[in-house]
Amino acid sequence: MASQAVTPQSVDFSKWYNEIVYKADLCDQSPVRGCLIIKPYGYELWEGIKGGLDRRFKATGHQNAYFPLFIPESFLKREAEHVEGFSPELAVVTIAGGKQLEEPLIVRPTSETIIMESFKNWIHSYRDLPILINQWANVVRWELRTRPFLRTTEFLWQEGHTAHATFEEAEAETMQMLDVYADFAITDAAIPVIKGKKSDREKFAGAMHTYTIEAMMRDTKALQSGTSHNLGQNFAKAFGITYLDEANQLQNPWTTSWGLSTRMIGAVVMTHGDDKGLRLPPKLAHYQVVIVPIYKNDDEKGAVMAAVQRMNAELLAANIRVHVDRREGQSPGFKFNDWEMRGVPARLEIGPKDVLNGTVALARRDIPGKEGKQFVSQEGIAARVIDLLSAIQANMLQQATVFRDQNIHDVTNYDEMKAIVERGGWARGWWAGSSDDEANIKEETGATIRCFPFDQPGGSGRCVYTGAAAERVALFSKAY
Amino acid sequence: MASQAVTPQSVDFSKWYNEIVYKADLCDQSPVRGCLIIKPYGYELWEGIKGGLDRRFKATGHQNAYFPLFIPESFLKREAEHVEGFSPELAVVTIAGGKQLEEPLIVRPTSETIIMESFKNWIHSYRDLPILINQWANVVRWELRTRPFLRTTEFLWQEGHTAHATFEEAEAETMQMLDVYADFAITDAAIPVIKGKKSDREKFAGAMHTYTIEAMMRDTKALQSGTSHNLGQNFAKAFGITYLDEANQLQNPWTTSWGLSTRMIGAVVMTHGDDKGLRLPPKLAHYQVVIVPIYKNDDEKGAVMAAVQRMNAELLAANIRVHVDRREGQSPGFKFNDWEMRGVPARLEIGPKDVLNGTVALARRDIPGKEGKQFVSQEGIAARVIDLLSAIQANMLQQATVFRDQNIHDVTNYDEMKAIVERGGWARGWWAGSSDDEANIKEETGATIRCFPFDQPGGSGRCVYTGAAAERVALFSKAY
Repeated sequence: MASQAVTPQSVDFSKWYNEIVYKADLCDQSPVRGCLIIKPYGYELWEGIKGGLDRRFKATGHQNAYFPLFIPESFLKREAEHVEGFSPELAVVTIAGGKQLEEPLIVRPTSETIIMESFKNWIHSYRDLPILINQWANVVRWELRTRPFLRTTEFLWQEGHTAHATFEEAEAETMQMLDVYADFAITDAAIPVIKGKKSDREKFAGAMHTYTIEAMMRDTKALQSGTSHNLGQNFAKAFGITYLDEANQLQNPWTTSWGLSTRMIGAVVMTHGDDKGLRLPPKLAHYQVVIVPIYKNDDEKGAVMAAVQRMNAELLAANIRVHVDRREGQSPGFKFNDWEMRGVPARLEIGPKDVLNGTVALARRDIPGKEGKQFVSQEGIAARVIDLLSAIQANMLQQATVFRDQNIHDVTNYDEMKAIVERGGWARGWWAGSSDDEANIKEETGATIRCFPFDQPGGSGRCVYTGAAAERVALFSKAY
Repeated sequence: MASQAVTPQSVDFSKWYNEIVYKADLCDQSPVRGCLIIKPYGYELWEGIKGGLDRRFKATGHQNAYFPLFIPESFLKREAEHVEGFSPELAVVTIAGGKQLEEPLIVRPTSETIIMESFKNWIHSYRDLPILINQWANVVRWELRTRPFLRTTEFLWQEGHTAHATFEEAEAETMQMLDVYADFAITDAAIPVIKGKKSDREKFAGAMHTYTIEAMMRDTKALQSGTSHNLGQNFAKAFGITYLDEANQLQNPWTTSWGLSTRMIGAVVMTHGDDKGLRLPPKLAHYQVVIVPIYKNDDEKGAVMAAVQRMNAELLAANIRVHVDRREGQSPGFKFNDWEMRGVPARLEIGPKDVLNGTVALARRDIPGKEGKQFVSQEGIAARVIDLLSAIQANMLQQATVFRDQNIHDVTNYDEMKAIVERGGWARGWWAGSSDDEANIKEETGATIRCFPFDQPGGSGRCVYTGAAAERVALFSKAY
């Protein structure tokens, strides 16, 4: 399946994406509207993402827990903005055990409300704070237009939920988890995300502040890849959560939440992929190296496979995630294409001549053709592969960073912004407009404020839309 | 919370269980009927179970994938026995995105039907077989009577689903996964499960054969702890799955499924727990050792904490999962009770005298009081703890095995069986009865056939119920 031609990115990026996720065997369509089947190769990528995040969550003192899938309808209604934001997208269980339920149950779109009800029982004194919880779970949002991984009716994610004694502690937690997301994205996924704050129009329903990591895809559109919310005391008040502080005064705690989902799979595909298929960063790739044996007859096979076994054992012993492609009846060329489609970072090819010469061909996925292929000694192969994987990881981040920076343009007025958004790219300009102004821009150009980046130029300028004095710049772009 | 008195097992085992799961901080009640909140300490135990199983699944060639939470109602109806078995327990989504759905969606009670629909698309030729998939997921069964971990409306589990070319291969897979479950239960959870086959009355709805691992709880009741089903061609035919065999003939594949759930947490609690709380087997325990520092003033604290840091570093370096209880304002006695309630296998106590003597007190949870406590040198503590943990793991399995074997009794007639079941224990006797006979026994005694154990005495005898000639023995017991 992987050898068929793909629509080039330059012809139709959207079509390229929709073809590639199936051809690379990441997922399959399901008979349930808007739901996706995550196939083993896609799920292995998700396991890599989970592993990288879970390790970081635990290192920062968080513990995993699990809360119910179902939320009583009345809970969702307690925080006014929250229910308004989510109510168009809810899936509702009305019948269970053969009977009509007295109170319908919502299939969780996110778990703030059900978790706040527990926090209410767990928090009594300042000594009970902070509470630092994470949950790995499935959630359901009934989206009208869905796309594999980017927007699906059901998706997998983690949602962190924490409670703190003060605004400052909650804000520090919100920032810490944004940093955790950014570190994961940059270090493991080789995606040079930009950290920033969402506008009021784009923030989470019920939040005080929402922070985001924004990634640029190969078509220059933005993908919101993870968000971290300071929920203020909104949910604590709506759920009547109180604690006695050290002065024996009753206080509401401050809560946060933060989430990252299977969308990240889409981010990896659209940040690194090319017309030959996926390109997986070595740190996330389930297989970091594939070995393709090359032979024409049983004699050759015997000698080649002996060398392959030796390489394989050596790489395994060095903790390299290696796979030997033992498929019979498929040509080496087919296998090369197949593993390129699946984005395996490095490939070893061993034929009869290599056996004689004690060499092996080592090809890297991030540099196409002959340039990316070298013939090296079988001796010391593990050390060489480790170096190569680390070079590939660095190069992929570098390529994506250069691409991103080439496609962010400073603009000083609305015409310039429109031209950039039209042509493709992110526009960076001073902003002092209102939520209505943002809505107008979205209406007219399709672009939204992705964030107010933390990395600000300093000083002040004139708002690109209203011309008013502005204290900060925003990034504008079309987005997934 | 952990220091309160617990109802002794001998007074009311059921009450003991219901108290212990909350006091040991494994879970909390939720506002949703029959759903449980799994708290961090309980979830860490589940992570241990998941890790032990997932490793074994991958080592036997299985890959994880993810299928939709929702199943179209029509799918469930395609396999007649299957829908009959599950229809009383279904939760049904009828409204989504603000609209009545044309076809209601079932929240999966198990995923055979939705996965078979994919297998139909993935299987065309004998070359596509076998397919070896596992899924970690939440499922929902609307139970009327629920108990923490043992029976909850929503629970977490894994469900394996595989397809094979022949009956023999499917049967071998079914057996292999039962062996994987048994190996996990015995080796990691120290639960001496008995492998066997379910009677037709007790088998999975839609299965050809169901195999089970049955564990004996401390009240001698049985807990079905994992099941593995040979589904024959039932589902393949119901879903129209076919493949071309090597002779180019159209065939239906043979499928299996196998599952183990958060019930296993209940099995660990009820196999090993005592009146002081949980007793966790070292291989599953999130904390294998806890260090409790003992001091009265800052001078003592300085010297003690220096020794504690040294011990901690040494144990961590040896890959022992260690935790230092640094809580201020709690007495050592409170901490000892707390960690005993939480079932941590070993405890190190270090006070000022120990610092002077270069010693440390090492207490084991599986042997109560002074007998289980020794004063040892701080020198070489890591090696000593490793040995102790391994001794505890072995002792817990040994204790549970002795208890199990003491409570299995051979019976030759129905009166003897009733007496055993009444008094508490499993009755082993020859069986040649019908499903109706089994139903009568359940009605009259509360006991069911737990399984026909693989370990059979050989020969033949007279059925304990009908007196007819019988070829195999069954295990009868009350069960959770």
